[in-house]
Amino acid sequence: MKGPGDEIAHQGSASQRSRENPLLQALNGHVPVKVPVWMMRQAGRYLPEYRALREKAGDFLTLCYTPEFATEVTLQPIRRFGFDAAILFSDILVVPHALGCELRFEAGEGPRLSITGNLEDLGRLAGELDPAKVGKVYEAVARTRTELPEETALLGFCGAPFTVATYMIAGRGTDDQAPARLAMMRDPAFFEALIDRLVSSSSAYLIGQLKAGADAVQIFDSWAGVLAPEEFVRWSVGPIARIIHAVRAEIPDAKVIGFPKGATLEGLTALVDGAGVDAIGLDWTVDRRAVRGRLGARVALQGNLDPLRLIVGGKALDEGIDAILDDFRGAAHIFNLGHGIRPETPISHVEHMLERLRG
Amino acid sequence: MKGPGDEIAHQGSASQRSRENPLLQALNGHVPVKVPVWMMRQAGRYLPEYRALREKAGDFLTLCYTPEFATEVTLQPIRRFGFDAAILFSDILVVPHALGCELRFEAGEGPRLSITGNLEDLGRLAGELDPAKVGKVYEAVARTRTELPEETALLGFCGAPFTVATYMIAGRGTDDQAPARLAMMRDPAFFEALIDRLVSSSSAYLIGQLKAGADAVQIFDSWAGVLAPEEFVRWSVGPIARIIHAVRAEIPDAKVIGFPKGATLEGLTALVDGAGVDAIGLDWTVDRRAVRGRLGARVALQGNLDPLRLIVGGKALDEGIDAILDDFRGAAHIFNLGHGIRPETPISHVEHMLERLRG
Repeated sequence: MKGPGDEIAHQGSASQRSRENPLLQALNGHVPVKVPVWMMRQAGRYLPEYRALREKAGDFLTLCYTPEFATEVTLQPIRRFGFDAAILFSDILVVPHALGCELRFEAGEGPRLSITGNLEDLGRLAGELDPAKVGKVYEAVARTRTELPEETALLGFCGAPFTVATYMIAGRGTDDQAPARLAMMRDPAFFEALIDRLVSSSSAYLIGQLKAGADAVQIFDSWAGVLAPEEFVRWSVGPIARIIHAVRAEIPDAKVIGFPKGATLEGLTALVDGAGVDAIGLDWTVDRRAVRGRLGARVALQGNLDPLRLIVGGKALDEGIDAILDDFRGAAHIFNLGHGIRPETPISHVEHMLERLRG
Repeated sequence: MKGPGDEIAHQGSASQRSRENPLLQALNGHVPVKVPVWMMRQAGRYLPEYRALREKAGDFLTLCYTPEFATEVTLQPIRRFGFDAAILFSDILVVPHALGCELRFEAGEGPRLSITGNLEDLGRLAGELDPAKVGKVYEAVARTRTELPEETALLGFCGAPFTVATYMIAGRGTDDQAPARLAMMRDPAFFEALIDRLVSSSSAYLIGQLKAGADAVQIFDSWAGVLAPEEFVRWSVGPIARIIHAVRAEIPDAKVIGFPKGATLEGLTALVDGAGVDAIGLDWTVDRRAVRGRLGARVALQGNLDPLRLIVGGKALDEGIDAILDDFRGAAHIFNLGHGIRPETPISHVEHMLERLRG
């Protein structure tokens, strides 16, 4: 347990990190001293040390809920590559699980959840997150912060309510998450109640992570791209805005990255206008110069290397990196992939990417 | 066989149709006298008469290559609903099949093709379409034209080279068609040669359909949305532009609808600027007013009802229809879905949609 002196020491280093870490500089609206870099899913299956620990843990959720395991996995890519940020090893489906959904991960099959398809199903879930579950996550955050190099930022995260709802309603991932959009149209009272539950629980979850030591958080709206424009404003931007508002009511200077995958320039603009994000994550399909021209003076821009270029390496990788650096030179830019790193990515390509970025 | 008199009669009615059919009016740059309507996949599994014929034929490809079956299926939705256009019943994978790829459709599994993964595989395919196969398609077009009401437009189609290549390279559909984009980066010489083969064969295929009696054609780039902006210009717009150029070298006034699903406003603009399309198909995620403002004076706009609204019916359907009509009032607009109709769509909802459209 920390004493008052530790707390001051911790705040002191957090404040120093906020000034000196390039990712946190970008989130604070500055052009960073060097381009910060981290990768979505940087702790994961492309790393042999991850695969070894996963085998030892036996189960994906055991990894997530065992603080020493989650910490170790979070630290692995930092030890190997020295990224500017670690991101908590966890899963966006921890929130529905901590509300009482059944959840299991089958090898090669993706997640399977108990279906939450109507108000009755929703009524069987808890109103608040089970502290026995999310407490383990907060413990992992605190432990990671202790073990992480002082200069490295620590990111927490959650799924955006729309994206989490798509899995809860279908009970799994589907190729277009149509079940959730059908529910949105067929049973708006249920859909809104589900989103509300996810807004409040995700807000509490991010607050818990920030209080445990996360320097900033990212909200992943991985399925936002299937929404029509007015749906995007209502069901992607709206809930994210409410989460950020609730988080900042507790932690006024909380820094938040929004990543609505598949969003158009109009959608990204709506997110910046409506939600108060400090940065937007960009997938590999966006027009970087158009986004920078429209939004680069207002928020940090994170992305957007095509993960396939990192698999292929060579010229495809170098050209991809160089184009991003050229387009975002002089901006508050955080280098990242446009989507999570894939398991088949060679580690040597990640090393090469970092050499090229760090010149 | 037609005599000279028949040919004149046919040309006469085609010319009259071009003036009087609202879809063809829109493709000719006019605001149509009434909003034309057809639906992607309008001949298909949501219709009991289709399911009955499919069972009789036994196999999907038998339906496609048996002119009396393909004609009958093409006509079914016209008889039932009186759409302003019929679209040839066929599949975008007829082109690779007619180049020598093995192809089968497994129930509930989607298409399975022999993989074309490198120059050696491509070398084993034919340089031109097998006339024994595509001849049956042209025969179906001619037969459909004869049996179709004079006032109804007949659309032919093909897949865009990029989209067809994604299936040929993976041998199937995948959730993001990454195999094709990996091949594009790893083996550009092969990828370009494959696209070239598809440009020349698709051009010949559309010319064959137009000569057989199609009034216009649509090019489906169903996977264009996974491309980065510069890839979109090169691999979606470029091949479509070359096809249209080749088609118009033979048939100068050929009318072409381009449908790059998942394209951004910038992508749609590149298609209009670069390819000479007469209309663009819009999926349900586009910002209609932004597209109209940018492109509505230059091309007809086709779309974009969310197919899920047609499943749900009621208020979701009515609001969806009304918003489209409001946004496109006074434009050269062709009412359609934003993607193909789904098998679970109730026929009564299609009837209701038509009543609402025709007021």
